[in-house]
Amino acid sequence: MHQPDPQKLSLNTATVRQQWTLDKIIEGCARHEIRGISPWRDQVAALGLSQTRQLIKQHQLTVTGYCRGGMFPGIDAAHRQRQWQDNQRAVDEALELDAACLVLVVGGLPAGSKDLAGARSQVRDGLSALLEYSRPRGMPLAIEPLHPMYAADRACVNTLAQANDLCDELGDDGLGLAVDLYHTWWDPNFQREITRAGLKRLLAFHICDWLNPTQDLLEDRGMMGDGVIDIRGFRQAVEALGYDGFHEVEIFSKSNWWTRDPDEVLRVCKARHQEHG
Amino acid sequence: MHQPDPQKLSLNTATVRQQWTLDKIIEGCARHEIRGISPWRDQVAALGLSQTRQLIKQHQLTVTGYCRGGMFPGIDAAHRQRQWQDNQRAVDEALELDAACLVLVVGGLPAGSKDLAGARSQVRDGLSALLEYSRPRGMPLAIEPLHPMYAADRACVNTLAQANDLCDELGDDGLGLAVDLYHTWWDPNFQREITRAGLKRLLAFHICDWLNPTQDLLEDRGMMGDGVIDIRGFRQAVEALGYDGFHEVEIFSKSNWWTRDPDEVLRVCKARHQEHG
Repeated sequence: MHQPDPQKLSLNTATVRQQWTLDKIIEGCARHEIRGISPWRDQVAALGLSQTRQLIKQHQLTVTGYCRGGMFPGIDAAHRQRQWQDNQRAVDEALELDAACLVLVVGGLPAGSKDLAGARSQVRDGLSALLEYSRPRGMPLAIEPLHPMYAADRACVNTLAQANDLCDELGDDGLGLAVDLYHTWWDPNFQREITRAGLKRLLAFHICDWLNPTQDLLEDRGMMGDGVIDIRGFRQAVEALGYDGFHEVEIFSKSNWWTRDPDEVLRVCKARHQEHG
Repeated sequence: MHQPDPQKLSLNTATVRQQWTLDKIIEGCARHEIRGISPWRDQVAALGLSQTRQLIKQHQLTVTGYCRGGMFPGIDAAHRQRQWQDNQRAVDEALELDAACLVLVVGGLPAGSKDLAGARSQVRDGLSALLEYSRPRGMPLAIEPLHPMYAADRACVNTLAQANDLCDELGDDGLGLAVDLYHTWWDPNFQREITRAGLKRLLAFHICDWLNPTQDLLEDRGMMGDGVIDIRGFRQAVEALGYDGFHEVEIFSKSNWWTRDPDEVLRVCKARHQEHG
């Protein structure tokens, strides 16, 4: 099948977060027949966890991921302890929302540090400790490798290979990958590493497009079809491994999609998912 | 030795290109006792090739690299033919200037293309053809892996591993790497890949810093010490392999260093090279 299953579209709520509160986003998904949703913690906190759970159930949406835990490296043990506790709360919230996984943005360099290898060690240690909490509770953790341009400030896990290495080391029970094409489309080892990951580790699949030129490091992601990523080819590559989960659209777009009528944004997401996804 | 040899500092002329023409830059290097220089083709064309050669000789500067050849992928054969001819001229100019190497920025996706693997094949083919010209003339080609954020528009060779793979495939006679820390500092395989490259392939070593946050994808590079790169650690890593070539400073900085008195920029380059290089 060339076109994607429209039932597999999921909306990462960041895509319309500037226009709508979470209740409006949930209702928007239902109205536009988008069956998956991936909410952010601050939006859930604003709406209330139980209210969020109730609205999502009411509209029978699938929570394809919960954004987000991680941010493991810290300048001292007290920071890391606070982060560990916060990550436990994130696991609890993800469980409450029946999320498919807790997405992990693992964190970059602690303030003032140039020790990238040290930060990566802290990620491994923090992840190992969090797994002791998440595994018995049955909440899968999805390591999301971020584009290398975020190595300093957001995530020092920058390739699928690094994420696979972590799964190898820590065991892939309750641990896997969130494969976001925005972060990984450039990777010459993409095919090798998703094959190495295999179906069991493919916990989430995120799509959007890389604009050429890109105006902003963080908030200039493109709608599917407006950039250079062969989204269909990548989607077929993960499906060839047996992946039949959702295709989650996550677009940070300060000067374009965040300024538009959110109903239009959802209509375009649906159409572009069919055309380019 | 902890501090770098000050005689090993080289100036990539892009660092002060907004303030000075090439003749002024050459004279500035001499005045500040910066012994290496790496000029760009457009600046050389503006000053004239023989005039550039003469001024550089007069001031006894070492040309640590010539910027730049490459841009191999093209939308059609005619484009690639023109590019091949232009790359031959770049080799000739590099020879005329006694450059240590011709630096190659290999090019990204052809206009309208989403075929990254195809672009990478075109790079291999274009490089193979150019080697037939450069090898008998004795001009080494230095593949510069660019940061993955430039995969679409500038270079689809984004890791040291890819560059090493090209050297393996095409033979490393007259072919090697330009290792620029701005592009490679995030790479978890940095140590493995420079070791794999070995002394023979280490044709150039470029330094500057990664600012956190970075405001612009292209023109917000940092002065050594202002960012998060452990420049000293990386320099010692290449020197541990026997590298004793220059440390070339290349800073594109639209809103900071390009707006300053260029004599101040060179003074700061020298001081920061000693302090952080």
